[in-house]
Formats: sequence, C-alpha cells, structure tokens
Amino acid sequence: MVPYVYDFTEGGRSMAALLGGKGANLAEMARLGLPVPPGFIVTTQACRVFLTTGAEPPSLAGELADHLAALEASAGRSLGQPDDPLLLSVRSGARFSMPGMMETVLDVGLTDAGVAGLAKASGSDRFAWDSYRRLLQMFGSTVMGVDAELFERALARLKEFVGAPDDVSLSASDLAELVDTYKALIRDETGEEFPQDPAEQLRRAVRAVFASWNGERARVYRRRAHIPDDLGTAVTVQRMVFGNLGSASGSGVAFTRDPATGRPGAYGDYLPDAQGEDVVAGVRNTVPLAELERLDPNAYSHLMGHLRVLEQHYRDLCDVEFTIERGTLWMLQTRVGQRTAEAAFTIAAALADEGRIDVDEALTRVGGDGLARLMFPRFDASATGDPLARGVPASPGAAVGAAVFDSAEAARRAARGEKVVLVREETTPDDLPGMVAAQAVLTARGGKTSHAAVVARGMGKVCVCGAERLAVDVRGRRLVVGDTVVEEGAVLSVDGSEGAVYVGAVPLMDSTVMRYFETGERADGVVDAVAGALDQADRVRRLEVRANADTPEDAARARRFGAQGIGLCRTEHMFLGDRRQLVEAMILAHTDAERERALDALLPLQRADFVGILTAMDGLPVTIRLLDPPLHEFLPDHTELAVRVATAARPDPHDVALLDAVERMHESNPMLGLRGVRLGLVVPGLVAMQVRAVAEAVVECRRSGGHPRAEIMVPLIATVEELRLVREEVERVLAEVSASSGLTVDCPVGTMIELPRAALTAGGIAAEAEFFSFGTNDLTQTTWGFSRDDVEAAFFSAYLAKGVFPVSPFETIDRQGVGRLVESAVAEGRAARPDLTIGVCGEHGGNPESVRFFHDAGLDYVSCSPFRVPVARLEAGRAAIAAGDGPGAAV
Amino acid sequence: MVPYVYDFTEGGRSMAALLGGKGANLAEMARLGLPVPPGFIVTTQACRVFLTTGAEPPSLAGELADHLAALEASAGRSLGQPDDPLLLSVRSGARFSMPGMMETVLDVGLTDAGVAGLAKASGSDRFAWDSYRRLLQMFGSTVMGVDAELFERALARLKEFVGAPDDVSLSASDLAELVDTYKALIRDETGEEFPQDPAEQLRRAVRAVFASWNGERARVYRRRAHIPDDLGTAVTVQRMVFGNLGSASGSGVAFTRDPATGRPGAYGDYLPDAQGEDVVAGVRNTVPLAELERLDPNAYSHLMGHLRVLEQHYRDLCDVEFTIERGTLWMLQTRVGQRTAEAAFTIAAALADEGRIDVDEALTRVGGDGLARLMFPRFDASATGDPLARGVPASPGAAVGAAVFDSAEAARRAARGEKVVLVREETTPDDLPGMVAAQAVLTARGGKTSHAAVVARGMGKVCVCGAERLAVDVRGRRLVVGDTVVEEGAVLSVDGSEGAVYVGAVPLMDSTVMRYFETGERADGVVDAVAGALDQADRVRRLEVRANADTPEDAARARRFGAQGIGLCRTEHMFLGDRRQLVEAMILAHTDAERERALDALLPLQRADFVGILTAMDGLPVTIRLLDPPLHEFLPDHTELAVRVATAARPDPHDVALLDAVERMHESNPMLGLRGVRLGLVVPGLVAMQVRAVAEAVVECRRSGGHPRAEIMVPLIATVEELRLVREEVERVLAEVSASSGLTVDCPVGTMIELPRAALTAGGIAAEAEFFSFGTNDLTQTTWGFSRDDVEAAFFSAYLAKGVFPVSPFETIDRQGVGRLVESAVAEGRAARPDLTIGVCGEHGGNPESVRFFHDAGLDYVSCSPFRVPVARLEAGRAAIAAGDGPGAAV
Repeated sequence: MVPYVYDFTEGGRSMAALLGGKGANLAEMARLGLPVPPGFIVTTQACRVFLTTGAEPPSLAGELADHLAALEASAGRSLGQPDDPLLLSVRSGARFSMPGMMETVLDVGLTDAGVAGLAKASGSDRFAWDSYRRLLQMFGSTVMGVDAELFERALARLKEFVGAPDDVSLSASDLAELVDTYKALIRDETGEEFPQDPAEQLRRAVRAVFASWNGERARVYRRRAHIPDDLGTAVTVQRMVFGNLGSASGSGVAFTRDPATGRPGAYGDYLPDAQGEDVVAGVRNTVPLAELERLDPNAYSHLMGHLRVLEQHYRDLCDVEFTIERGTLWMLQTRVGQRTAEAAFTIAAALADEGRIDVDEALTRVGGDGLARLMFPRFDASATGDPLARGVPASPGAAVGAAVFDSAEAARRAARGEKVVLVREETTPDDLPGMVAAQAVLTARGGKTSHAAVVARGMGKVCVCGAERLAVDVRGRRLVVGDTVVEEGAVLSVDGSEGAVYVGAVPLMDSTVMRYFETGERADGVVDAVAGALDQADRVRRLEVRANADTPEDAARARRFGAQGIGLCRTEHMFLGDRRQLVEAMILAHTDAERERALDALLPLQRADFVGILTAMDGLPVTIRLLDPPLHEFLPDHTELAVRVATAARPDPHDVALLDAVERMHESNPMLGLRGVRLGLVVPGLVAMQVRAVAEAVVECRRSGGHPRAEIMVPLIATVEELRLVREEVERVLAEVSASSGLTVDCPVGTMIELPRAALTAGGIAAEAEFFSFGTNDLTQTTWGFSRDDVEAAFFSAYLAKGVFPVSPFETIDRQGVGRLVESAVAEGRAARPDLTIGVCGEHGGNPESVRFFHDAGLDYVSCSPFRVPVARLEAGRAAIAAGDGPGAAV
Repeated sequence: MVPYVYDFTEGGRSMAALLGGKGANLAEMARLGLPVPPGFIVTTQACRVFLTTGAEPPSLAGELADHLAALEASAGRSLGQPDDPLLLSVRSGARFSMPGMMETVLDVGLTDAGVAGLAKASGSDRFAWDSYRRLLQMFGSTVMGVDAELFERALARLKEFVGAPDDVSLSASDLAELVDTYKALIRDETGEEFPQDPAEQLRRAVRAVFASWNGERARVYRRRAHIPDDLGTAVTVQRMVFGNLGSASGSGVAFTRDPATGRPGAYGDYLPDAQGEDVVAGVRNTVPLAELERLDPNAYSHLMGHLRVLEQHYRDLCDVEFTIERGTLWMLQTRVGQRTAEAAFTIAAALADEGRIDVDEALTRVGGDGLARLMFPRFDASATGDPLARGVPASPGAAVGAAVFDSAEAARRAARGEKVVLVREETTPDDLPGMVAAQAVLTARGGKTSHAAVVARGMGKVCVCGAERLAVDVRGRRLVVGDTVVEEGAVLSVDGSEGAVYVGAVPLMDSTVMRYFETGERADGVVDAVAGALDQADRVRRLEVRANADTPEDAARARRFGAQGIGLCRTEHMFLGDRRQLVEAMILAHTDAERERALDALLPLQRADFVGILTAMDGLPVTIRLLDPPLHEFLPDHTELAVRVATAARPDPHDVALLDAVERMHESNPMLGLRGVRLGLVVPGLVAMQVRAVAEAVVECRRSGGHPRAEIMVPLIATVEELRLVREEVERVLAEVSASSGLTVDCPVGTMIELPRAALTAGGIAAEAEFFSFGTNDLTQTTWGFSRDDVEAAFFSAYLAKGVFPVSPFETIDRQGVGRLVESAVAEGRAARPDLTIGVCGEHGGNPESVRFFHDAGLDYVSCSPFRVPVARLEAGRAAIAAGDGPGAAV
C-alpha cells in the first residue's frame, strides 16, 4: 500500500505532486545532507481522501504515530514531555505555491503541563508563555473556529491595561494572564476546552490544514491562478526551531545570486533574535547578509556552503529561508528563486557558460515576457517620486513628453520635434495620427484590451490606460487629479511597464536590447545573453515568425527584428487619412459609374502601398488581407452627425447625405454584420480593385528585379462557398494582369479562420485555400460571444475579479474553447490538403503562452507586431524544446 | 466491368443515382410492360469520367454503338436510313430534378439526305422540314455553341419577310429556306458544317449534355438547391415519337388522383395534334383528360389502365407525360407527383385505409410545412384579383382588416372590436402591442428572419414583409403603391402563405384543422387525416415536444396543441409595459438601496407571472430563463434621445438622466455584450429576485394543491465558472425559501447552450447543469458571425441569390457547422452526466428539417411556439420512423 506519510529522508524534489512544493524541497535538502529540522510530510493523497470522503484515511493515524515516534527518538524528547516538550510546526504545502492562502499552526505540542519545562529548557519564561499564547491563538482560530478577531481584541485590551506599546513589551506574567484569557475565550466560544493532549493537537491541526484547501480565499485564489480544485494540499510536520532565543539566534533569507541583476554571489537579509515571520513582516530592520559573517562567522560559512550546494544541485538561482538557533544553522525552506528579466537572461547565460546547463536548457530559463520588458527604456528607479496616478500597464516602456489632449495638437508639436504624451478619456481610430506622433498614450478609461492598449502595443508605444483618477478636460486642455492640474504642454513621465504616471521629467535609461535589434550593437552583458538565447531559439524552433505590418517602415523594422515575412498586411489603414474622401465617394456612390470612378482613383494609391511593402519584404511572403471592417467605420459617428444636423440652422447638405448613408448602413451589431468577405461579395468592384493593385504591384516589383511574394487573404469566411466565389474573381483578375503584363502573376489565395464555422468546416474550406491564418481575436469574440470593444467596461473586470477566467482570453489563447477549434481546424485542414500552410495573425501571435500552444497545435508560423517578433522567436524556440520536436529532435 | 450504358429493360426505379430520375423511371415503366418508346441511358458515371478527365470513357463509343444497333433492330429502321430515318431524343436526367437547367437535343439523326424520307414516311413535307430546322437550331446552339439568339433572329426575319404571324403559319418551303439559312449561320459562326453523319450527331449531343452539367445556370441552381457538384447527369437516348402528326395524335399530362384535393380518379389535360412542349408552353388551350375518352376511347382506356398500374406499383400519386402518335399511346415520363398539403394528408390517409401502405409509411408521406399551411385560414382562390403588392410570405395564413400605421391606433381600433392590419416600414419591439392587436402585419422592409417575421410567426399572426413596392407614409397615415393610395381605415387582405396583399376584403375560409386543435371538432376529411397522422406520430416519436410560452394564455394554448411542458419561458417580456418604470429605476439606481427598492417592487409581479404559468402547465415542466437581453433594450434609443435633448429648449431632466445612462451603457455590439448570465453576475440582486419569485410561486402553487415543476435556466453561459457562481446563488435562495416556507423547493438548474464555447466545453458544464437547452438562434449567430438583426438588409438576400447558402441558417439548422457543435455537446454532456436532459428552444425547434436533425442528434425534446407544436409532433414522429429508432423499433 502506498503510504500517506513520508519522512523527509524518503522524499525528494521530484515528488511535489504528492508532497507539495515546500515538503518536496525540504526532503531534497535533507537528502543533500543539509541541516533541516527533522520532520515528515502527510501527502496530498491523504488530503484528497479527506476532501472527498470527509474523513482521514483509516491508516493515517497509525502512520502519523509511527513517524512521530521516529521523530521523538531522533530528537531525544517527546511530544508533551513535561521537562522539555518537543514542539512541532504544522504547515500547508500544495503542489503549486498559494502563499498565505492556507493555514499554519506553530508550537503544536505545548500544554499547561509543558510550559514550565519549555521555560526551563529554553531559559526563558517569557519565551515559553509567548509560545503557548501563540499556539492558543493559532489553534483556537484555525482548528477550533473561534473568530481570530476575538484573540486580537483580548491582546489589545491587555496591552492597553498594562500600558504596553507593543507585543514585545509584554512580560512573562502578562502573557501567562493572556493564556488564561485565551483559554476562557475558547471555552466560551466553542463549549470545549483547549485540548491538553498533544497528539490530539497534532491530529486536529493536520485536519485543519486539509480543510483550509477549500477555504473561500483559497478557492478564489485557485480560480484566478487556474490551479485545479482537486489537487489538495500536503502537510509538513517538523520540529520547531527558534531564532528568537537571544542574540546568538536569528532568521534570514538568502539568494545564491543577486535576483535583480543576476550577478554571482550570495545576497540576502538577516535579522538577529527573530523568527522567520519577523523578517517577512518587516517590523524591525534587517541587516545585509554580509553582516552575518561578522556576527556569526561559523554559521555564515556553513550557510555559504549550503548555498553553493543548492545552486550546484538545482543548477539555478535558489532562495532559502534559514534560522540560527543559539549558533546552530537550520535550513527551513528552499526553492528556485524569482528574478528580474535582466537576471534571468544573465543567469541562464552564465550557467550555460559555466557548463552547468546546456544551451537548450538555458533557453527554457528565459521568457518572452521578460524579453519584452528588456526592450523598453526604463525610468531610473532612484529618481522617481510618488506617481500622479496609476493605471493599467498596457504597453511597456517609459516615455517623457509634453501633455497634449488631442490628436491634431500631438501631430503639430511632434512635427516641430517636440516629444508629447497624448492624454485622452479613451482613444478611437480618429486618434491614430496623434498616437503615431506621441511618445506615450495615457487614458482614463479602458483596460489591457482597449483600443488605446491594443494599438499602442502594436506600435510599440508606451501606454497606461484606465487611470481612473484622471479627469481629462479636453476643452480646457488640461487634466486634473485631485488638487493637481496639468495644463497642456506640461511635462509628464509615463511608465507603461509599471502603470504609473509622474509629473515632470523622470530621467530615462535607454534599452540596450532594443538598440541591439535596431543596430546590432552589443552594449552590455544582458544584450549578449539575449542574443545568445535568440540564436539558440532560431536554431531549434520549428515555427516561423512573421510580422503584422501595413507600411514599408513597419515591414523594414520587422525584418531587422527577424521576421520571416508578413503574416498580416491590413489594407484598411490604407483607406484612411487623405483617401477618406475617395472611400466616402465609393460608399455614397449612387451608380456603378460613380463607384467605379472612386475605385479607379484608389487603385494607383493601393498599388503604390503594395510596391513599398513588397519591396521592403523582397523575397519573403507578404500576406495581404482584403478589406475587412464595416464600411461605416469610414464614416462619421451616427449620433454626433444626427445631433449636428438637428441643431444646425441650415444643415450642411453633405452632412445630410452622410447621415442618410450612415442610417442606411446602421447595424445594431457591426461586428456581426456587413464586413470581411461579405463586403467583397456585396460591393461590386472592391475585390477586383484590391487584387488588381496587388497583381500590378507584383509586376512592377518584378520589372525592377525584385522577388515579390504576395499572398491574398480573404477575411471572415464562414462557408467555403464564399471563398469559392471570391477565388473565382481573384483568379480572373490575376489572369487579366498576367495577360496584359506578359508576366505570370500567381498569388496563393488563402483565408482567415476567424469564425467558429470556418474552423468547424475547415476540411471543406481547405479545398479552396492554399493557406489558413487563424484570426484568433475574432475567433475569441465569436466563440465566447463577447466583443472586445465592449467587454472591458461592462463586465470583464468583474469576471477577472471573480476568477471566471484567470486572464483575458484576448491576451492568452483559451485552450479549451478557442484552442479546440484551432486544433480541429488544423487536423481537418491538413487532412484535406496536406501541403496547407497554417499560421496565426491575431494578437495572440506575440503572446508567450499562446505561441507555445500554436507550436503544439502544429502551425507553420505565428505573425505578430514587429516589436513582438523577438519575443515570438524566443518562445517558438522554447516551445520546440519543451515539446521535444524542434528540427534537431529525433522525431 | 460495369457498363456505361443501360437499356431501359436493364434499369429500374432504384437506380436513380446511376441512371438519373427520368431514366430510372422510364426503365421502371418499361419493366412494368408499359409502352415506352425504346431507348437506353448513358450513366452518370460516364458523365463523371467526362467531367474529371475531359474525355468520354474509352469504352463508351463501343457501348453506344451496340445499344444503337439493338435499338435500330427493334425499330426496324436505322439512324440515317434515307427512306425512313430513325430519329432520337437526347435528354439530360440527373439524380435530383433540375428542371430546365441542362440541355436537350431532339430529332437527332436527321440529315439533308433523310428529310425527304421523313416527309414521305410521315406524309408531311412541313413536318419533315420543321423537324430538321428544329434539330439545326438545338444542335447549333447546344452542341456547336452558336448564340441561340442568332437563330431566333433569323426565324423572326423570315416570318416578317413572308408575313407569317406565328411559326405554325410557315410553309414547308419557308422552313426549307430557313434550314439553308441556319446551315449558313452555323458555317459562318463556327467555320464548320452541320454534321451530316447521324452517329456523330449522337456522339456530340451526348457530350453536350454531359458538359451542360457545369453550365453557369446549372451550377447556381445546384448551389441554391444544395445538390452536390460531383453527381453528374445521365443521358437518356430514346426513339422520337410524335404527337403532332394530325388529329389522331396528341400529347398530355395526367395524375392518378387530383393533386389539389387528393380525391381519387385520374386528372389531367390533353392537347390534340401537339408535342409535349406545346402542352407545357400553353400556346393552345388544352382539354380536360375526360375529353380524351371521347376523342380516342381506346387510347384513353389504355392510359387509365397504365395509371392504375403505376399508382399500384408506386403506392402513391403519380403524374405522367404521354403522347399519342396516330392512335398509339406512348408513356414518356412518370414520377411521384407534387401535391398540395390537403391532398398529401388526404391521399396518405386513403392509401393507408386501402391497405396500400401502413400507418408509419402514411406518416412519412405528410410533412410539417404542409400541416402548418393547413392551420391557417385561406382566401377563396376564386375571389382574389390582382394583388396590390407582393412580399415575402413570412407567416402563413390569410387575414382581412383595416389598414393602420402605428401600434397605438391598432390597439385603439382592436379595443373597439375592429379587425386591423398593421402596416409599418419595418417593426421594432415598440410595435409589439400593435402586433398583438392586429390580424396581420405588413412591412415594406425585411425578410423571413426580420423582427416582424419572427415575432409574427411566434404569435401565429399573418405576416407579409419586405413588400418593397409599398411606400409607407406613417405621418400621412397612408400607403402608396404606384398610383394606388390606401388611407388609414381602408380594408386590406393579406395572404401570408403566398406573400400577397389585396385591396378590399377577399372572402376568407376558416381552417378546419385549427378549429380541431382549439376545440376537438372534426369538420372534414382533412381533419381526420391530420388527426390520424398526429396520433401515429405521438405513438412513434421519441422526442418530447414543449412550447415556448411566456404567458398563462400561451401556456394553455400550448397544452391544447399537445405541448408536454414549457421549454422556454422568457422573463424579459415581463419587464415591459407598465413595469418599465420599475426596470428603469433598477437600471438607473445610484445606490444599492435604490436598486433593491426597484427589485423588491418587481418581486411580487414576477411571482404572480410565474404562478399563472405554473398553474396553466400544472404537472408539466416549465423551464424559466433568467433575464437575458441587454438592459439598454429597456431604455429609449440613443440617437433619438440625444436629438431630443439637443433640440429641446429646456431638456427634460429625466431625459438627461436617461441619456447619461444610455451613453454609459452604450455597447457597439450589444449582442456580444452585457447580457445573459453576465447581467446576473454584474447586477446585484437580479438573479436572487427572479429565483425568489420562482420559488415563492412554486410554494404558492403547492399550497393550492398544484404540482408545479419549475426549472431554472441560465442563459449565455460561456464557461462552467459562470454557471457555478449563479448556481450557488440559486441554491442559496432556494434554501432560504425552503426554510421560510417549510416546503422543500427543489428546482433543477440548467443552462442554455448558445455560444460555441459552451458547446465546446459541454462536458465540463454538464457537471453543474441538470439540463441543457440549445439556443440555436444565438448559436447560429456566433458560429456564423452574423447577427440576425442585421443580416437581412445587408447581405442575406445577396447570399441566398448567389447560393452561398440554400436557406437561411436561422430557419433550418446548419448541420455542418452549428449541428456539429450540437452533436459534440450532446455526446460530451451525456458522457459527463448520463441523466442530463437535453432540449432545444431556438426557432429551429418548430422547423421540420431541424426537428429531424434534433431527433438524430439524440435530444430529449424540442420546444417551439405553441402554434408550431403540432408541426413538431408530426415531424418528431416522422424522424423516429426515418431513423428506425422510435420507441416501437427493436433497438
């Protein structure tokens, strides 16, 4: 039979599922011979039995007794032994860290009969009574269900009564009195005495830890962190050691390297005469770890040795908690430590250089989110004061500029060479020129997937959004936060990584990593580490990485950043700006002739757009999407226009015509309306114009000696019939241009898979498509039935808070729902057409967790904004290593 | 090797896939010994080879020659024989009827050398030359690709030149001259002579029929009719017979019973001295079939015998085409005949009574669409004149009333007992009272799934929508069609079955079938037939049928119509009318207290609603859906309000507050916004109020001795977490009401499956749901990515016209896409919870083809509007028989 209890010496690091993370690592340290206070672990399996049956497994009591006996034998004293009682800590420890979410009971084993013995053995009455009242307090609330508040109030009353300013000032007799008060409290509240049987204390404490798995806090935490509900927690039972037994005792935390910079050498804090809790609580000031060398050279030297052993053994940065009890060092916890992005890259590279890990493993130690952070300038942390406001860190980096409150002013000042921060209540497509001109975008409304956030991330602009304290007064050209007024032109500093805004100019530190991508310059060790990781990622990855780019400038940048083509070239941005009039004319056309005139005027402009992009990406694929958004997006807002017409003394006839068109085209749900391929099938000549522009651009590039590789992508396909009809028209136009130019123009035709029905009928659609590109933004919208434009304000924040989902499915792909559609579409598409090329061009293409999913799903490429290209390269490499199926793997 | 050519004597009715429908039935008649002109059939397989390889199968020529030789032997004359040439008809015939979509060549085999012989053999020079010019015309255009228009023009010029008023007036020599003209035309246009080799004519005619499968018309037809593109057509080659050889010749069509009423006895039309085409073309007046008895008693008696044989053999109404050539009767075509709904029920019942078919088969011979037509009053067909306008037949039946142009006027007149027709440009939810009051609804815009159509069908009101010629002048209280002006109060007659509108009162004939459902009265034989079919359907069906009903009146009607419960009780309609103010107060609440006051006021009203419905459905399940629509639907329109506020001298403060709320709640895509379960999770107290109203209603009904069976349904679930959170609240309230009432109130909690993600994660959702109800309206919207409110105007008509889909997926469930989600959700839901109850409550629940799908998918019930309940019962029975898995089947 599998045991329910493991001694530390029987466990190990690989057993976290059964022993919990904390227990497994304690066991590992014990096996390494490090000084761990002896103890044992009750398994998560025992907890699961308890949670499902409501009772401990029958054999648990016997196992507990056996392990306790062994512990007593090794300690040379026993639980409840009056002259020197053995005390135990009983702690939760789940497979995945859930800090502070479950219960802990310390000093288990202390009884009325044992206090005097503990006092004598420790040489401190006060220590003994303080330990006892702590046990009563923790056990009373955690195990016996007394409101914790009642204990706090009794403590406060006592301090008030004796005039003690803090706990430390209470004397042994004060604490003895408090013990009586606590015992009475427990009796009154529960009708039961505090149990004087130490074995019963232990049994009930273990049970309370089990039960705390299903506490309200723990459940909400798990829902948010997406930790399954049925894992259960392990319980670590361990001999208590005490850092609060005088100046030869103390507690501390240590790292094997600097977790901020990755520099080698131990790093940490120490607090003499204190328990571990006191270090964390920060009531007294700690001293740097180096100081321990002076205070206790012997313990320090042991600690340094242990840290070396741990880093050698774990082959990574470790952090530890330790306690020194009267000169004896005890290791209480270790784990692979958290670190900054800079440290992650530096340490991984160093460990690989030292031969401790290989280059593949080094790559698994770094991540795309960290790389993204390193690509942005930062504020000098020493120079920031209190922020003016905080908001959502929507697009990382730091920027300084003059506050401006509309797009036109932003453009005006930027044209003069001024740096500006565009401040808006929220942004709309009309703010695009201002966003282009600005260093940073700051909004008072909207979250991580608001227009401002999405567009800013796409452009690589700094963005803080949803800074709700901001009152943006566009007419008054100022913003107000409480008493502070920021007038137009005043300088703001925006930290998009932290979500903070400062008044005045905070000194900026440029990103050396970004400079490396732009120029190839290797300015420091972080850059070397990043470059090494990317080289290795490029060697092992199977996913290609393309970029979403609509201009020659973006295309050129994407190439510098390592893009292997353009996976999404949107054509709608090419319909804005000074072409708006032509687009309006096309929409308002009353006759075919009027519409054709407008399209004819657009043709050479579109052609020039494509020539520029194809030239910048010469030799690499450029996937051009036919016009996608509803046409009314190119017209003014309905309500604004209606009010303007209704309130004008003599309405502008153009406004009246526009209003009429807007009303004719009004849709209650434009996201589900006339857009994508539907436009192409309903607006005569539109597809033909765009395809002709592509084909003529290809001819022009080839005549100049280029190797253009244009692909034509049809958006919003729901059924293969739509694709078949558009494909016929595309082929007709390509044949015409081939005939007139004398060059064979042959562009692959493919489709977005962005509606559930397209994914569900992918096998049929593949018959007419040379490639698929998943539009996971729209696919997420329709699969979940919520619009990205609307969800933020209405219920997304409530959903995240309630843990309905742990992260927005617009940010990280929803594997269960959307992911399932992706997987089946890949399988059925490839079954129908084995050489089908499959990519993704939604925002998810640059999201680390999503890239791993796309690798696993068997896609050929991901496409993302140019700035995310290195992130996607890195993650594609990591995914190949994780899956063991990169090109180097023996498949 | 499988042959590519079958003699009629080798084929039969079951071989339609290989021989086409026409060929298979000709072969069947030949096998039955009926006089069919001898011939053979080139298979669809030969066609498929031709279509995929571009050439006939190599062995085809030899087979054709062999069969031709046999035909010549049986006819005693041969192709091209100068003194009496054998002539052939070469016709297309696919597996599914595609009338007029493919090519036919008649008189194949005639040449310059054969005309004189034909003249002599037939005794008519004119007949011979006319036959030749017809061959040239058909062969020239169909086979040789000459523009058919050129032949028509040459014919027209000749008639003008000789002064002939019609073709019949052309003499033999005129026609001989025309033959020369046609031959020259062919030569000039193709550079080739008309082939004088009869075998070549045959070969090329067969190939032309093959090729016509892929003609533009045929492809569009197939796309619309959803006929696969790869079936190909068969080619029937048959000896020509001629009904135009004098008064002892003629052609006709006949039915074995009256296809309009189902009355037994032959029925048809005859045209002496004419070919079959002339009967169809209707240039001359036909005589009733009975007249043939006088004209040619012998042929008539043979025909009657053949009709009896056919009906006996096919065990169904058959129609035939026949020709009499100089006293000899030839059968040219037969098939199971089309019929009216009345005839379908009557004939099925009669055949079952006669023991010719069993009751199960009788049930397969009738359909829900027909039953629905029989449930509505009809206009007396003899009394209608020309319609004022035509539109979409959106909700069947016929109604007469005074034209009114707004909802208030409709309600006013209806309150006085007047019958009215509500005429609107299009309808909105504000028109609901008027629609309730009206006999019929008539709109100028919108299709079968527009608001007017959907709501009218739900109410069982007559509706014609999208009657585009109507100019509705609401302010002028009139409508205008061309020169006709209909003022308010003038009488209109609306035929919702035919989509026609008449000025004045057309006499109405009540539906005896409807009267039967309402009262049980059996007024005529059609009712008996319908009742018999429904009895049998109820015996065999496995699907339960529930109704969508929101009021006690609807619930009571549904019960009369045979509903076994309510599958969807919407609560939003209960928030309209005079409760709007309370709902507004709830929405506009600034504090929790204000909101609670509004909810408290709504509670007793909701409870009373539920008491009424539960009482009407006592003992049967009533599935109550929590509030679903976005809250702004209870507020005024944004633009209207904005204009009102902007143009008012002193804006109403209530309007200003409303405008503010509307703007705060504005969503660009409300269908994808804050609605369904999201409301329940975001608006505090809403779920609790509704659940309390349900629970208290259950208590009240039980205290009055009833057996209420309320179920609570949560709309718009995307993830199981949402359901879990709502379920907790539902259980809390049920426990409270149980505690306070002393009765255990235990309502099953289930969910709509109406988002793709819910279907994709149905296994997980089933853990928290006692039942699923597919909301296929929303599921169709999100799976296809188009909104039902928007699609009509924008692109649906274009899509139907282009054949992108053959029928709106909102009308008939889309098996490939939406259906696939339904199937997988059923499988995974049942796997997770074997006793899960599964139904559907979208509009599809009352659609015949969809009901069959839901049976096949293994649902437990369908729910539809009360008026569709008999339709669903009938179709559920038919589905069980078709699938062979009704309760009577040995499974």
